[in-house]
Amino acid sequence: MTILANTLSKRDVYYLLSAAVVPRPIALVTSVSSSGIVNAAPFSFFNALSSDPPLVMLAIDRRRGELKDTTRNILSLKEFVVNIVSEAIAERMNLCSADYPPEVSELEVAGFTQAPSELVRVPRIAESPVQLECRLDQHLEVGRAPNDLLIGEVLAFHIDEAVMEEGRISPHALHAVGRLSGSNYCRSTDVFRMERPKRTG
Amino acid sequence: MTILANTLSKRDVYYLLSAAVVPRPIALVTSVSSSGIVNAAPFSFFNALSSDPPLVMLAIDRRRGELKDTTRNILSLKEFVVNIVSEAIAERMNLCSADYPPEVSELEVAGFTQAPSELVRVPRIAESPVQLECRLDQHLEVGRAPNDLLIGEVLAFHIDEAVMEEGRISPHALHAVGRLSGSNYCRSTDVFRMERPKRTG
Repeated sequence: MTILANTLSKRDVYYLLSAAVVPRPIALVTSVSSSGIVNAAPFSFFNALSSDPPLVMLAIDRRRGELKDTTRNILSLKEFVVNIVSEAIAERMNLCSADYPPEVSELEVAGFTQAPSELVRVPRIAESPVQLECRLDQHLEVGRAPNDLLIGEVLAFHIDEAVMEEGRISPHALHAVGRLSGSNYCRSTDVFRMERPKRTG
Repeated sequence: MTILANTLSKRDVYYLLSAAVVPRPIALVTSVSSSGIVNAAPFSFFNALSSDPPLVMLAIDRRRGELKDTTRNILSLKEFVVNIVSEAIAERMNLCSADYPPEVSELEVAGFTQAPSELVRVPRIAESPVQLECRLDQHLEVGRAPNDLLIGEVLAFHIDEAVMEEGRISPHALHAVGRLSGSNYCRSTDVFRMERPKRTG
C-alpha cells in the first residue's frame, strides 16, 4: 500500500509517522518558568544527536500556534533536565502529559520528588533512574506549523546505582519505556544481541 | 551517581548516552551514490520531528573526519528512503552495518530485494514492512566532531498490508526492533496502554 503524504490529513500524517517510527525513547523534561514553577512534560520526538559533546534533541509542537510551557521555559532559562522514564514511573509520567495551565507544577500533580541539579537551575526527578542535565545549545523552527527543535548539551549524567551491572547500565534493570502510537507504549526488556560484523574496508 | 560530562572520554560519553536514551527507533537508510551504487546502512540517532509536513531526522557521525557514504549520497542526490526494521530483517540489517567500501552495495551483501520508489530515485527494501520516501529538507552540522544532522521530508509512505489491523499499524504485527547500547536490541511487542489524562486547562 503506497500513500502519498500530500493526500493525507494532518491527523493521518501524524498517526502514520508516530506508528512507523517506533519504538521512540521518552524524555520526561523538567523546566522552570519565569515565576519559578517547575514544569514536567513527556516528549518522544527525542533522541541523541552526537557524543562530542553529548547532544540531545527535542522536537516540540505548538498548541494553537502558542509555544508549549516546556519550550517557553527552555528558551528563557536555557536549561532543562531530561528524566528517563522507567516502567515504575510510567503512570506518573502519563499524569504529566495532561494540558495543565502554566502555573500548575506537573511534578506535584504526579507526586514526584524534586532533587537539585549539579550544574543547572532546573531540578531533576528523583524517581527517574537516569537524568541528564542539559544546557540549550541551539533552537530551530522546523516545518510549517512550525515545531520547535531544541538541541541541548548534556552537562551531567545522574544514574541510579540500582540500574548498573558490572559498570554498565543494564536494560533489564533500567526498564525503560518506549513510545508507540496512540495510547501504546512498550517495555524494552525483551532483549536480543547481535554483534556488529567485522569491518571489511 | 553523578558524572560530569567533561570528565569522561568520548567513548564513555557515547556509551552513557546510547545506554540512557533508549529504546531508539532504527532507520535502515537506502541511498544512491553518484556512480549508481545503492547503499544501505542502519542509524538509530533517528526520529520524527514534525507532521506538517512530515519530517524525520538522522544524525550521522563521521569516520575519521570523512562523511559516511550515506551522508555523501544524501547531500548529493537530496533523496533517501528510511526502511523500518522488523525482527524478520534484523539480522540482514546488521549485515549492512559493517564498514564496506562505497562501491559495495550492502543490499546485495545482505540479500535484500530492491523495489522502485514512487517519487524518489532511491529504491526501497521490499522486505521492510514500512518504508518512507524522503527528500532532504535541511542539513546542519552539530557538535565538535561534527555530526551531520539531516532533516528529510517524507513524501510517501509504503506499508505492508500484513502489518495493518482495522486500518491501523499493529505493533504486534509490525515487530519493530529498538536499539539499545552496544550489541543490544529490543523487541517492541511487549505493549501496554495508558490513556492520556483529560485536559484540565
